[in-house]
Amino acid sequence: MENKILLGHGSGGQMTHDLITDLFVRYFRNDYLGPQTDSSILPVNTRNIAFTTDSFVVDPIFFPGGDIGKLAVAGTVNDLAVSGAKPLYLSCSFIIEEGFPIKDLEKIVQSMADEAAKAGVLITTGDTKVVDKGKCDKVFITTTGVGELQEDQIHISSGNKVKPGDKIIINGSIADHGMAIMAARNELNIQSAITSDCACLNGLIAKALSASSNIKFMRDATRGGLATVLSELSSGKNYGVHVEEDHILIKENVRGICELLGFDPIYVANEGKVVVVVDQEDAAAVVDSMKKHPFGRDAAVIGEISEDHPGKSWLTTEIGGKRLIDKLAGEQLPRIC
Amino acid sequence: MENKILLGHGSGGQMTHDLITDLFVRYFRNDYLGPQTDSSILPVNTRNIAFTTDSFVVDPIFFPGGDIGKLAVAGTVNDLAVSGAKPLYLSCSFIIEEGFPIKDLEKIVQSMADEAAKAGVLITTGDTKVVDKGKCDKVFITTTGVGELQEDQIHISSGNKVKPGDKIIINGSIADHGMAIMAARNELNIQSAITSDCACLNGLIAKALSASSNIKFMRDATRGGLATVLSELSSGKNYGVHVEEDHILIKENVRGICELLGFDPIYVANEGKVVVVVDQEDAAAVVDSMKKHPFGRDAAVIGEISEDHPGKSWLTTEIGGKRLIDKLAGEQLPRIC
Repeated sequence: MENKILLGHGSGGQMTHDLITDLFVRYFRNDYLGPQTDSSILPVNTRNIAFTTDSFVVDPIFFPGGDIGKLAVAGTVNDLAVSGAKPLYLSCSFIIEEGFPIKDLEKIVQSMADEAAKAGVLITTGDTKVVDKGKCDKVFITTTGVGELQEDQIHISSGNKVKPGDKIIINGSIADHGMAIMAARNELNIQSAITSDCACLNGLIAKALSASSNIKFMRDATRGGLATVLSELSSGKNYGVHVEEDHILIKENVRGICELLGFDPIYVANEGKVVVVVDQEDAAAVVDSMKKHPFGRDAAVIGEISEDHPGKSWLTTEIGGKRLIDKLAGEQLPRIC
Repeated sequence: MENKILLGHGSGGQMTHDLITDLFVRYFRNDYLGPQTDSSILPVNTRNIAFTTDSFVVDPIFFPGGDIGKLAVAGTVNDLAVSGAKPLYLSCSFIIEEGFPIKDLEKIVQSMADEAAKAGVLITTGDTKVVDKGKCDKVFITTTGVGELQEDQIHISSGNKVKPGDKIIINGSIADHGMAIMAARNELNIQSAITSDCACLNGLIAKALSASSNIKFMRDATRGGLATVLSELSSGKNYGVHVEEDHILIKENVRGICELLGFDPIYVANEGKVVVVVDQEDAAAVVDSMKKHPFGRDAAVIGEISEDHPGKSWLTTEIGGKRLIDKLAGEQLPRIC
């Protein structure tokens, strides 16, 4: 193989065929993936599927704790899992800049294959486009996922069973991903040991779902951070969402960089954090089940659904103040995922 | 709304939310599309689904006969339909360059909505990322599709029932899309009336499938053109693929531009052409059924599966010569789709 991606790799001809065979099919190997069919043909055993897509344009493409490939698999797996679905199949589509090193592409593909294997999902179909040098930034990846959804989990996606008294849980510290990316951007010249929390959460979520049949809502707190999830959870509803600042874990070094750069950690992106709303009766059981999973060791109740302030989300600060949580107005961190 | 896309539109915060609500949800409106869920929850009524993805990076984004949005819907609908599936659901993910005019985005979204409505598919989930000016070229769209596949159509995707004597049909003239794009590129300064054949073929394909239960294989002849489909059809098989040049329709103005620019039309991309392999007994019935559809008026048998030259594809020329058809080695037309 050549050592750089050429326009010919996106032609649909022999070079595309060779790239698919030598790289994608080799790493993603499974019974449903063939280089020469237009669609993959997949069995499904439920009446309902969950279906989700995300494009990943993260900069830099390699960062502490992950890379764009791991992120692309985890992000889509998590979007399925928080809907209460069992993630099964992923598609992946690459837009690659001419001249991109094939060894970097291979690292990304290997990372996707590893993460898919850990999550128990199959990458069954894909596409590759190459654009002229300068017409995209290295590589963009779009992953789309299909999961099986049981009838009794359909309400989780809409959250229509959420009611006052329900507890709000998160599985660990916030703002790790966003600050890991910021620190990794060369122009800032920051030395830090911050690692992205990027991970597939479907295993953790399965544990939580098996601990309680009263999980009402889940959402991964990615772009826009914890604040955006809470704000969307309360928006237009007849209940309020209340969290307590001193229950929300922020690692010291993450807090330090947030302060240095002027970011509010509740708005900073995570890639391995899920917000769970559960009936108060089952909250302790769900926290306990999550704590037994490597991605849930710091799981905690951080707040509750309240009859106060319908439609609003707010945070009580460590010194007893109240602060409204609104959606981020504009952009905080471009190309964080 | 602002009149240009800003980085904030990709933030996951209020601006993203407004863009989704004011643009995507407004045009794509359907029961499954909501701005605030991670996955769409979709009913399926078969044991098998077809699943396919494509990224679209076409340049220019508006061209005679279509635009990147129409192309993105049609391309993915067609990949499902040629697998014998009934296309049902699409996801769409946008990567947009900062500064892109919102009125252009709206034209594209409207075009996607129109094309989806024509094809009878629902766009149920999506994503929007914005990258800094100069980090992508205007807009890239990735569509992923899910279709229902009946048990008795599963063989179409692999083509494992194809045998010598079967007839090869195409639904009309070739090379229109590729030459429409070339002519539309400003730098060439070509005046032409060539229009892309970009269209959703699922209606046409349904007609063909209802005319014969002996359709063995279908493939849309996109990147790499008719030649690539034929070459892949014969590759590694114990039969040969034979087509006759004088049965393959090429419009006069398309042929003219191909000659002017030195392109071989059998390698030029189409976006509304399907190659169908059918038992010889049913070939006339399939051609007749296609001729009754607006996208199949020029349908014709162009060749057959042969016992000669196993593993090869070839064309007999109008003057009686034989020419091997191989995959395109490298790139013919970058960013054709």
